[in-house]
Amino acid sequence: MRHEVNLIETRTFGSTLRSRLKEIFIPDDPFSHLQDLPPRSKAHKVLKYFVPILEWGPKYTFKEFRFDLLAGITIASLAIPQGISYARLAELPPVIGLYSSFVPPLVYAIFGSSKNLAVGTVAASSLLLNSIIRQTVSPEKDMKLYISLVMTAAFFTGLLQTVLGVFRLGFLVDFLPRSTITGFMGGTAVLIIMQQLKGMLGMERFTNKTDIISVLHAVFMYRDDWKWQSFVMGICFLAFLLGTRHLKSKVPSLFWVSAISPLVVVIVGGLIAFFLHGGKKHGILIVGNLKKGLNPISIGDLAFNPPYVEYAIKAGSVTGFIALAEGIAVGRSLALLKNQQIDGNKEMIAFGLMNMIGSFTSCYLTTAPFSKSAVNFHAGSKTAMSNVVQAFCVMLVLLFLAPLFKYTPLVALAAIIIVAMIGLLEFEEMVHLFKVDKFDFCVCMAAFLGVPFLTMLEGLMLSVGLSILRALLCVARPITCKLGRLEGTDTYRDVEHYRGSSTSPGILILNVGSPIYFANANYLRERITRWVQDEEISVSKNQGDIQYVILDLSGATSIDSSGIGMLEEVHCSLKKRGIKMVLCNPRLEIVNKLVLAKIIDLVGTEWIFLTVKDAVKACEFDLQEYRSRQEPV
Amino acid sequence: MRHEVNLIETRTFGSTLRSRLKEIFIPDDPFSHLQDLPPRSKAHKVLKYFVPILEWGPKYTFKEFRFDLLAGITIASLAIPQGISYARLAELPPVIGLYSSFVPPLVYAIFGSSKNLAVGTVAASSLLLNSIIRQTVSPEKDMKLYISLVMTAAFFTGLLQTVLGVFRLGFLVDFLPRSTITGFMGGTAVLIIMQQLKGMLGMERFTNKTDIISVLHAVFMYRDDWKWQSFVMGICFLAFLLGTRHLKSKVPSLFWVSAISPLVVVIVGGLIAFFLHGGKKHGILIVGNLKKGLNPISIGDLAFNPPYVEYAIKAGSVTGFIALAEGIAVGRSLALLKNQQIDGNKEMIAFGLMNMIGSFTSCYLTTAPFSKSAVNFHAGSKTAMSNVVQAFCVMLVLLFLAPLFKYTPLVALAAIIIVAMIGLLEFEEMVHLFKVDKFDFCVCMAAFLGVPFLTMLEGLMLSVGLSILRALLCVARPITCKLGRLEGTDTYRDVEHYRGSSTSPGILILNVGSPIYFANANYLRERITRWVQDEEISVSKNQGDIQYVILDLSGATSIDSSGIGMLEEVHCSLKKRGIKMVLCNPRLEIVNKLVLAKIIDLVGTEWIFLTVKDAVKACEFDLQEYRSRQEPV
Repeated sequence: MRHEVNLIETRTFGSTLRSRLKEIFIPDDPFSHLQDLPPRSKAHKVLKYFVPILEWGPKYTFKEFRFDLLAGITIASLAIPQGISYARLAELPPVIGLYSSFVPPLVYAIFGSSKNLAVGTVAASSLLLNSIIRQTVSPEKDMKLYISLVMTAAFFTGLLQTVLGVFRLGFLVDFLPRSTITGFMGGTAVLIIMQQLKGMLGMERFTNKTDIISVLHAVFMYRDDWKWQSFVMGICFLAFLLGTRHLKSKVPSLFWVSAISPLVVVIVGGLIAFFLHGGKKHGILIVGNLKKGLNPISIGDLAFNPPYVEYAIKAGSVTGFIALAEGIAVGRSLALLKNQQIDGNKEMIAFGLMNMIGSFTSCYLTTAPFSKSAVNFHAGSKTAMSNVVQAFCVMLVLLFLAPLFKYTPLVALAAIIIVAMIGLLEFEEMVHLFKVDKFDFCVCMAAFLGVPFLTMLEGLMLSVGLSILRALLCVARPITCKLGRLEGTDTYRDVEHYRGSSTSPGILILNVGSPIYFANANYLRERITRWVQDEEISVSKNQGDIQYVILDLSGATSIDSSGIGMLEEVHCSLKKRGIKMVLCNPRLEIVNKLVLAKIIDLVGTEWIFLTVKDAVKACEFDLQEYRSRQEPV
Repeated sequence: MRHEVNLIETRTFGSTLRSRLKEIFIPDDPFSHLQDLPPRSKAHKVLKYFVPILEWGPKYTFKEFRFDLLAGITIASLAIPQGISYARLAELPPVIGLYSSFVPPLVYAIFGSSKNLAVGTVAASSLLLNSIIRQTVSPEKDMKLYISLVMTAAFFTGLLQTVLGVFRLGFLVDFLPRSTITGFMGGTAVLIIMQQLKGMLGMERFTNKTDIISVLHAVFMYRDDWKWQSFVMGICFLAFLLGTRHLKSKVPSLFWVSAISPLVVVIVGGLIAFFLHGGKKHGILIVGNLKKGLNPISIGDLAFNPPYVEYAIKAGSVTGFIALAEGIAVGRSLALLKNQQIDGNKEMIAFGLMNMIGSFTSCYLTTAPFSKSAVNFHAGSKTAMSNVVQAFCVMLVLLFLAPLFKYTPLVALAAIIIVAMIGLLEFEEMVHLFKVDKFDFCVCMAAFLGVPFLTMLEGLMLSVGLSILRALLCVARPITCKLGRLEGTDTYRDVEHYRGSSTSPGILILNVGSPIYFANANYLRERITRWVQDEEISVSKNQGDIQYVILDLSGATSIDSSGIGMLEEVHCSLKKRGIKMVLCNPRLEIVNKLVLAKIIDLVGTEWIFLTVKDAVKACEFDLQEYRSRQEPV
């Protein structure tokens, strides 16, 4: 039974547009099942969609709470040392790190839909934030302004994230490829580890620059600052922390040992410093005063005035974008382990609200860091309640215990940061990239080397630029190939891939890659001409010239007006050489346009086929007829 | 005979890279036939490639010269009025327009490879140049600096064009889609026509702004400037010029009448103005003094100092890019009419050298305008010698006749510009775009409306931005579709396109679009999951759940590491639901990576098929076995 290309099935412009827009903005269509409900329960469902706590809250059981309590305490024990450490990376007062582990988790618990994410501050973004804001105000000169700018940046982060979520532009985050993130995190980790030499060696003078050359230079320039006590203590802490990490990798069920070990280090270090009457004379530098009390309101401190706001916007958007990419990626990969789906756009709104409300209450940038979320996941959290427990623990610390952390030795923080950073160095992933995809490896290396040797932002931009360039090149240079028949079948495949496949004399079959767009129309036209020329050279004369070029459009998913024009030009230029252009298997989107642009009439409906097999048969038949007409004089 | 996917045929990274780089930078490979030649004749060939006059010059015959002489005189007669007019559009002294029709055509004749292009100044770029340079220096305030900046811009234009050509980045020009150029030219034409109301009405006061609102406002604000004599003369000239245009469209062989009509208008207008002792009292404004003599050297006048050079670079790159796109497009379409090919990258070097040398000799931006090149083509030019003839004629004018053009009435220039601009309004093309591709129509309208209502640059950027966004969206949201078997065949096609096609129970066949990249890996994963969910809902229970998902990769031309990761995740998540993932027809580029990333082992080689038919058969067989094992208890 012979089938032909369906040229009648067309879609109106409206329906095409609607389906395209739907695929772009709401591919997951969260409200698709709401259509038949009455308005009231529809509104209720929509509200539950945006405020997931309304969904799971009423059904919450004590059994679930037991799991969440355990998970919450575990992540709180991680949140306290990490909060203090990362705040110091951002050159903020340590207490701001604690503030940031109190309000944002509460907000996320209300609006977030993931059951696994744990909210907190992150190292890479903290350092990046610092390196951008520093360009306009340095914390040494005006700490108050610096803090207010960091919080303003958090506000813009939140705004950006909310806007992206509301307008369902979540797909933009997908343009930050995994290989860039791997490289960026790795490069930042190297940088941060080098910076921690300051803390490990108990140095007081240091550089403000973030590139690795300046950092190493500073380490050796101020050699007389080195303190052996600090170094010995640091090595001990490092060994302890790495030991517990190793234990976790051997006995995964003991993950909690590694999770609470930073807190142990802080407490032990604090006790030592306290009994030594900590301080410079014993070579152990300490954090210094932490104010008791909950987050002060900071909404009035946000700086929206011209000379500074520009940097706040820049820092807020860049770090916000990275934080988002990290958070969404973590959410997705944890959800995948439980075979769940998360709605990226909804998560963005939750992250955005969390950062905006955070910026009003003395918090800086937060997201869902991988390490913390993984701990939360392994500790068996059932709902976002574990974040509430975390917030509650941190609140207790802020209310009653904060001053005790005054004695935390800086070297303990340095050890904690170093171990956390080692976890971000994904060398295995880099080797995997090198093996599988060399270009992705270059993208990764651009960030990995660019971050420590140029600036963080430049390394990131370089890497993203390379990826976008690749995506554009892929559109500009689609792959075309020549098809041949596999012996004994009617299947046609790439002759380069299947060496045994044969071609019929006088017929050239080309597979045209997708999409056929303005960016590649000229290339494709020239490439097709070149295929024809190459074929004419390679075919020996007695086999006769090429009479038919079959363009297999199976792989082409869309075409624009330049592409249509290209087909028209190819048709005309082949015609002048006495070659017939034959089209094969155009898809729905393409058939529509071929009909509208009258290419179908130009080529002739009888020369458009559904399969390559049919096309070849028709050409062979036509060729025989033509020869039989010519030969018998 | 059953064939399997060829998993062994791999290419080394080096050969893949080489072939990709070749497709990107030298798809036309101009030196491919040189490999077997001795070094000396190789060098000779390469020299001939870069300096085409060495190729055609020695073989040049008197017969060819007769054609070129005629064509050259015809385009010179167009060059003189257009040179003066467009220089006035750029607010430059008219004589610079003549200079620009002397040196650049000579340079192009040496380095250019097209036989059809005629070199000269263009209206749209002249106005754009003016609107950008004006932001830093206005010609009223400092004409000398303004001129030197315009020439500096021409230098940077040349530099950009040469660099693009030398590094074979010509494909970047393809990112300026045809629909943007159509819209931009049309919008500029509307703008310029409105501006010519000044000349037509003999007005002296006017606005410097280029948006249409300001222009119309100025026309009516200075109503007392209107001069009826000017208007009457203008209408007569317009009627004459449009008449000859109409004649050309009726009798194409009389194209030369329309080609010399602007010169006739200039001469007649000049005579009238001369006998009326031209000037304000008779209401006919004239051009004013034109200095006799050839191009003065301007290399010392180029301005490379900081506050201004920035604008020169901006103006030079933007106009250079547009001029290049126009020139290359004209060259390609004329070459196509004679079934020739032009090498875009080589042409760019020729354009670049022509603009750089031009900027040293008091010329401003030149390219190959469509109207002039078409006249050259129809006049039967055989080689680039017609440009030499053009340059020679303009040289004679510069040496002896320039002062005579003093009496050229401004209204005559306005009429010439208006008629030239009407030719740029391609309404038919816009209607065609609307019919064939609504999105391309929007791109076109963005430029067409953006140019007169915003600024020229903003309109252009808006339009290009929309196109790039579309190309990126196309990568971010590849089309997937469900396949079904056409009745009575083994052919599988999109079920939406071919309604009669049927699917086997328990088996879902999906066609995955290309390319599978970081920008769409998440989308594809979620989309595949959604296809499975939708299918499970729509399939009635008695038919059984889905057991196999066949991913037809025929259309996917490339994959990166995120795409590989996506396939791995889809495999795992389907496995958890008890569904088997089957791959079908991966292409050469993809097979390589599937093997390297061990996806082949994960899926199992026995579950990778060459055709959908084979895959379905295997699934059906496996399903039967599975059922027969279960049922007979």
